[in-house]
Amino acid sequence: MHLPAVDGTHHAALESWVESANASDTDFPVQNLALGVFRRRGSTSLPAIGAAIGDKIFDLRACFDMGLLDVLPPAARLSCTGWSLNNLMGAGREIAAALRRRISELLRADSALRPEAALVKMKDAEMLLPAEIGDYTDFYASVHHAANVGRMFRPDNPLLPNYKYLPVAYHGRASSVVAGGAPVRRPSGQIQAGGEAPVYEPSRMLDYESEVGMFIGRGNALGTPVPIVRAEEHLFGFCLLNDWSARDIQAWEYQPLGPFLAKNFATSISPWVVTADAMAPFRAPLERTTADPAQLPYLQSDWNDASGAFSIAIEVWLRTARMRSDGISAQRLSRGNFESMFWSPAQMIAHHASGGCNLRSGDLLGSGTISGPGEQSRGCLMELTERGTKPVQLASSEQRSFLEDGDEVILRGYCERPGFRRIGFGECRGIVEPSSTL
Amino acid sequence: MHLPAVDGTHHAALESWVESANASDTDFPVQNLALGVFRRRGSTSLPAIGAAIGDKIFDLRACFDMGLLDVLPPAARLSCTGWSLNNLMGAGREIAAALRRRISELLRADSALRPEAALVKMKDAEMLLPAEIGDYTDFYASVHHAANVGRMFRPDNPLLPNYKYLPVAYHGRASSVVAGGAPVRRPSGQIQAGGEAPVYEPSRMLDYESEVGMFIGRGNALGTPVPIVRAEEHLFGFCLLNDWSARDIQAWEYQPLGPFLAKNFATSISPWVVTADAMAPFRAPLERTTADPAQLPYLQSDWNDASGAFSIAIEVWLRTARMRSDGISAQRLSRGNFESMFWSPAQMIAHHASGGCNLRSGDLLGSGTISGPGEQSRGCLMELTERGTKPVQLASSEQRSFLEDGDEVILRGYCERPGFRRIGFGECRGIVEPSSTL
Repeated sequence: MHLPAVDGTHHAALESWVESANASDTDFPVQNLALGVFRRRGSTSLPAIGAAIGDKIFDLRACFDMGLLDVLPPAARLSCTGWSLNNLMGAGREIAAALRRRISELLRADSALRPEAALVKMKDAEMLLPAEIGDYTDFYASVHHAANVGRMFRPDNPLLPNYKYLPVAYHGRASSVVAGGAPVRRPSGQIQAGGEAPVYEPSRMLDYESEVGMFIGRGNALGTPVPIVRAEEHLFGFCLLNDWSARDIQAWEYQPLGPFLAKNFATSISPWVVTADAMAPFRAPLERTTADPAQLPYLQSDWNDASGAFSIAIEVWLRTARMRSDGISAQRLSRGNFESMFWSPAQMIAHHASGGCNLRSGDLLGSGTISGPGEQSRGCLMELTERGTKPVQLASSEQRSFLEDGDEVILRGYCERPGFRRIGFGECRGIVEPSSTL
Repeated sequence: MHLPAVDGTHHAALESWVESANASDTDFPVQNLALGVFRRRGSTSLPAIGAAIGDKIFDLRACFDMGLLDVLPPAARLSCTGWSLNNLMGAGREIAAALRRRISELLRADSALRPEAALVKMKDAEMLLPAEIGDYTDFYASVHHAANVGRMFRPDNPLLPNYKYLPVAYHGRASSVVAGGAPVRRPSGQIQAGGEAPVYEPSRMLDYESEVGMFIGRGNALGTPVPIVRAEEHLFGFCLLNDWSARDIQAWEYQPLGPFLAKNFATSISPWVVTADAMAPFRAPLERTTADPAQLPYLQSDWNDASGAFSIAIEVWLRTARMRSDGISAQRLSRGNFESMFWSPAQMIAHHASGGCNLRSGDLLGSGTISGPGEQSRGCLMELTERGTKPVQLASSEQRSFLEDGDEVILRGYCERPGFRRIGFGECRGIVEPSSTL
């Protein structure tokens, strides 16, 4: 496989006839064309697939109905008529690329057509999950995160022996993946509160984890591994992902089979999917040193170390209930980058399928908490506050060791590179609601 | 909630006009009425829902077409027209019970009607997965299994501190759940073979795990726990489950987040679902002693300790390629019982939802390996051969520490109680195929 190349759709000079897409601070210039599923607010209309453009949504079903997609192969245009991106994801990278080129043509300033009737204001739309997620897998691919967390438990030996040989992962819960914006109810669960027996109480150590999510495009058959050189053919695109975690529930339950109720009460994702094609200009080398062990052959390719990673800055912002009522804006807690991962998306996919596990279109992979080497790049409160011992100070004179009810966590992500237009991921938001106990 | 009572559908004296259902050794007498999804072999007909009766399938869509279900509420009869049991599962226990009573009426020897046109021979049908499985969760509910495995790693302290306080579980892989009969490809994966670095090779320690599977009926909303007294309203029925496991892959990968590739290459389930209503006569007390700690209130009910469990004998049979070619029949390796679990299905459901996780109709819960106190009741080779150190001797003069290519594993399950008709689960079969490496 050749990595998808930078092409005409990425040119920095391109502008759109949709004015808001030309603003310097928009996440959605015509170079991005992130895809999602939306429904017009307050209407009875069915969900539809759209492309983000400035502060508008380009309704692709309306485009289909207007005949604007007739130049495309049937698989490309028919995939725009459904209520989820699964069909487009399953059609493969070439079909997705053909659709991208057509949307780009239609939205560029030099387009002969200006189908304004297909535009919907983002503020008039409710965003839904972009795909039916069959399975959700969460990786642990940031070596900095793994080392920071490991150091709390094993100061002399923070990384386990397998960490640099395989991308550690576990199966998450697909049913509780929600589109950003949905409130997140604090879980109750068993907690060791000092007595001999645990208690069942609302979690006192609720945390976020800032991650990148990856959607599987074409699937693989059960029993058929995916060679790493072809792994990116199965990668459709990226979103932001908040893997909400209850640290006290996790500490008590996780031995020996891993996290369960500590994570399955909610996972929020940003509703816009930035396609792998849109990411072509933002590839990056992997975070490896010559001291790290050689990769096993099934995790190696001639391009993986040099450009298997993707540069996505990811920021965590917090706004408490008091900050909202006092009119104080959200405060940034950290900024990390997806390029500082030890494992690439291609390696995660190749490893996931290496025993024959079948990945299906619409499956979601989380990267694991994205933390970098610096203190300001720690992607969860557990790391940032060193297990709650060094609370974060907020502009509202409040402080936080872990999340309180009413706190809103906002993830933001974007890609920048000299010579290219900045593209963004929009936001992944969630407000913590009080627990409902039994 | 009152536990479903034994009623007229369970009477031991009932016979069917389908002769084979009256044989003493059938798994599917008219007292069972297990449900499944089948397709007529070699035809282009769509899948349909059926009830098992002797060596036949009672085609419920045919019954619907013939007007035989018209006496039922719409939710009950319409749920018989689909290609999976999900709608029936979601309709709730009362609807399922109404359907059961109607099928019983139609199949009993005293039925005024004998709709033979709705019968399909089992040998003319291919069984499919009974439901679309959104999420698959695997528990670890046999205290004997947990202790046997724990003892291999921690001789002095086999059970971890949380074991008797909460039903330990992890999220499994839904995509690789297959209907029994499908071949199972030996996975390749990273194995620690003695060198400093692991190798990527076919697993040398492939194992089965004999379990009971439970299907979720009515779901619960995200953020809304399920009180234990109502938990069985969400339990639709039972099947047999083989949680194939690669022990060498598991040993290397599972720290700190639990099993991943060691389990996600295949999980086989028996295609017939024995409904919770059919199980009413076979309730049993939980495996608890007064020395065990008190349960937290959200896991307690007035009936759980005395009758929260279900008595299901589960046997593991093995037939190697040589046994097949020499005409030697399958050999029984073990027999355990689901009643020897430390946690009841109601407790598993209540715990699963206790932090707000939403269970959906068609979700699958595995019990975890079912092992009893005796050596002959150990439900996996890891326990039975003590990690391969005491190989099993076979009638073919072969021996097995772990599974070899060509081995067929057959799970069989049944319920017996004096005064009631024996009912069975059919079989869950799988033959091991050679690995495909990268």
